[in-house]
Amino acid sequence: MPASPIRKLVPFAEKAKSKGIKIYHLNIGQPDIATPAVALDAVKQNSLKLIEYSHSAGMESYRRKLAGYYQKNQVQVNHEQIIITTGGSEALLMGIMACLNPGDEIIIPEPFYANYLSFAISAGAKVVPVRSSIEEGFALPPVESFENLISSKTKAILISNPGNPTGYLYSKAELEKLRDIVLKHDLYLFSDEVYREFCYDGKTFFSAMQLEGLENNVILIDSVSKRYSMCGARVGAFITRNTEVLQTVLKFAQARLSPPTFGQIASEAALDTPDQYFTDVIKEYSHRRDVLVEGLNQIPDVFCPNPSGAFYAMVRLPISDSDHFCQWLLESFNYENETIMLAPATGFYSTPGAGNDEVRIGYVLNSTDLKRSVKILEEALKVYPHKTETINNESARYRHSSV
Amino acid sequence: MPASPIRKLVPFAEKAKSKGIKIYHLNIGQPDIATPAVALDAVKQNSLKLIEYSHSAGMESYRRKLAGYYQKNQVQVNHEQIIITTGGSEALLMGIMACLNPGDEIIIPEPFYANYLSFAISAGAKVVPVRSSIEEGFALPPVESFENLISSKTKAILISNPGNPTGYLYSKAELEKLRDIVLKHDLYLFSDEVYREFCYDGKTFFSAMQLEGLENNVILIDSVSKRYSMCGARVGAFITRNTEVLQTVLKFAQARLSPPTFGQIASEAALDTPDQYFTDVIKEYSHRRDVLVEGLNQIPDVFCPNPSGAFYAMVRLPISDSDHFCQWLLESFNYENETIMLAPATGFYSTPGAGNDEVRIGYVLNSTDLKRSVKILEEALKVYPHKTETINNESARYRHSSV
Repeated sequence: MPASPIRKLVPFAEKAKSKGIKIYHLNIGQPDIATPAVALDAVKQNSLKLIEYSHSAGMESYRRKLAGYYQKNQVQVNHEQIIITTGGSEALLMGIMACLNPGDEIIIPEPFYANYLSFAISAGAKVVPVRSSIEEGFALPPVESFENLISSKTKAILISNPGNPTGYLYSKAELEKLRDIVLKHDLYLFSDEVYREFCYDGKTFFSAMQLEGLENNVILIDSVSKRYSMCGARVGAFITRNTEVLQTVLKFAQARLSPPTFGQIASEAALDTPDQYFTDVIKEYSHRRDVLVEGLNQIPDVFCPNPSGAFYAMVRLPISDSDHFCQWLLESFNYENETIMLAPATGFYSTPGAGNDEVRIGYVLNSTDLKRSVKILEEALKVYPHKTETINNESARYRHSSV
Repeated sequence: MPASPIRKLVPFAEKAKSKGIKIYHLNIGQPDIATPAVALDAVKQNSLKLIEYSHSAGMESYRRKLAGYYQKNQVQVNHEQIIITTGGSEALLMGIMACLNPGDEIIIPEPFYANYLSFAISAGAKVVPVRSSIEEGFALPPVESFENLISSKTKAILISNPGNPTGYLYSKAELEKLRDIVLKHDLYLFSDEVYREFCYDGKTFFSAMQLEGLENNVILIDSVSKRYSMCGARVGAFITRNTEVLQTVLKFAQARLSPPTFGQIASEAALDTPDQYFTDVIKEYSHRRDVLVEGLNQIPDVFCPNPSGAFYAMVRLPISDSDHFCQWLLESFNYENETIMLAPATGFYSTPGAGNDEVRIGYVLNSTDLKRSVKILEEALKVYPHKTETINNESARYRHSSV
């Protein structure tokens, strides 16, 4: 089980803070926007005297109401096709365990969310990355790239849409290409849509569950964490029309008894969040993205494609060792006593060496702080002394951190 | 992944209810006693505006206070040796994944909590049962029984203390025997102590963590579910003094991000539950046990050892197919329009055929209902037509349920 590449930087961030340096946290995926009041109030006003296990598949009232949410969003599912999970994390872990045997392979466009690897390792499955590129804005790789990787061991393709860490929003046409591959080789298609609410520039979201002819193949992974700024509720969902897969996942769900009761109360109530909340949130994220992407692209030798969804941007920097650069920002740099914490992109690639000149930035700070962060990055790049060196190896890092 | 033997009975229970038959649920482990008000109030009075991820190891304030609870209970641990989990289930799953490789073996005295098998299967580990007997009240099997099963693949022993489903409370002397085995073969000792608060007849609980010389071997699994009647909070704990194991489990914990926030708020507050709450709860459970055990042993050919802890009793009945009997109670029997739902003991044994004349009863009903349930069982045994037949196989069951 690999350690999180971001977590490795935490001790350096703590040391910088102890020296009185202010850190702008661009490294995280925790929204800063308030949770809808309707969800918070439901928890405060609950009148339970006994906090019992819920049904292993989740409270039926919540599942019924959640099915209504999907139907409103052109995804035709009923409550019996939904298993409520402890976050999207558990949905994905149980899904991989249910659908893949040890040694089976799952193809994932990279860069991808680092914990996908952890869940696959837990299930004994092997991640096979298919490369998407920053030049193309992380569009779906060509069909041939998938075909080249598919073997008898391949059981599934996993996408994140809109993407973490890329922010890329797959088009309907791209999803239809995926459908053809999936059907041809009879694979599962896991679609992680936890950022489905956050699409910009007037683009509409098209779900993998809307693809026709894939009833037995598509598995939707969802979560309330980002949608309602409610990461700590730990409520997600595993959704499929494949009854055999549902029944197997339910066995895993039964073994862990039930998802959290209070989180489900909050999540059920959150479905009554006024539309205006999302209008405001999307306006805010969209504005931040504009500020960030425009600012970044004005720094010499920096390139940031314009993401259409989620709240992340991948950025190419004039460096050759992003782990070292991110550490150096915390350990050896400050601009007017401030610095930034970034996520080195190496953690989002499983291909060795990939992502060495990229970082991920989450725009979960207000736009004033984002502007300031861009300025700090610009100043940092002016003085960073190792732009063309690759010193990202254990002994080098050890020497460095002991200096 | 096996289906839960109790869950298989649910459709029969639903059918009985639809016919207007009242069912006494002796099959469950969900306490009926109210959650402490101090825990419920803390959730209602929380003033969070944003439900963020907590630390992956759990809120530090909770971990510090929880360490205080253990210290008060003669278990010397600090907050850095505690990882808060999503229920005891997750603690055990992550522990087995961290300590055992696929193919490794874990020895568990049987009968054991059915989900132990599910967690082991998820981790690719193999459960090796060591038989304890109802005649001995499910005391620890002799050392030789363990020695006979230990091989190079054996990595751990797992006990539940007080036991689910047995209610058996291991003595200090028994735990010291386990210590010797564990030390001799350098094994992990997983001690599931989620019922640690519920000990009767003035007996005191002795934790595996109190054993000397086992700092690197003992892993304590705990949960707030039973202690505070708070199963739906989904908060447990993984506790060990072995720093290497802690660090590995923390990686699994990081991959699933964090335990539930509201549940942690309730759990931290629950540590202020007045002592009187437990005095009352223990008095109540102890009274119920007396009513139940006495009543059961007065039924001809029924034997129920007197359990000293938890809130379960294992009962030997004059039957030879407990799965069939439990189904028959729901499907074909009623006494004055009432019946009982029991847990067939076969689900708590991994040795084929074991438990065919035993059931588990949870005393999570009030004593009036328990007395009535005993009466119903007595009447059922008078008329059950298959006492000496073994018809517990798929084709027989299929025939039966289609009649």
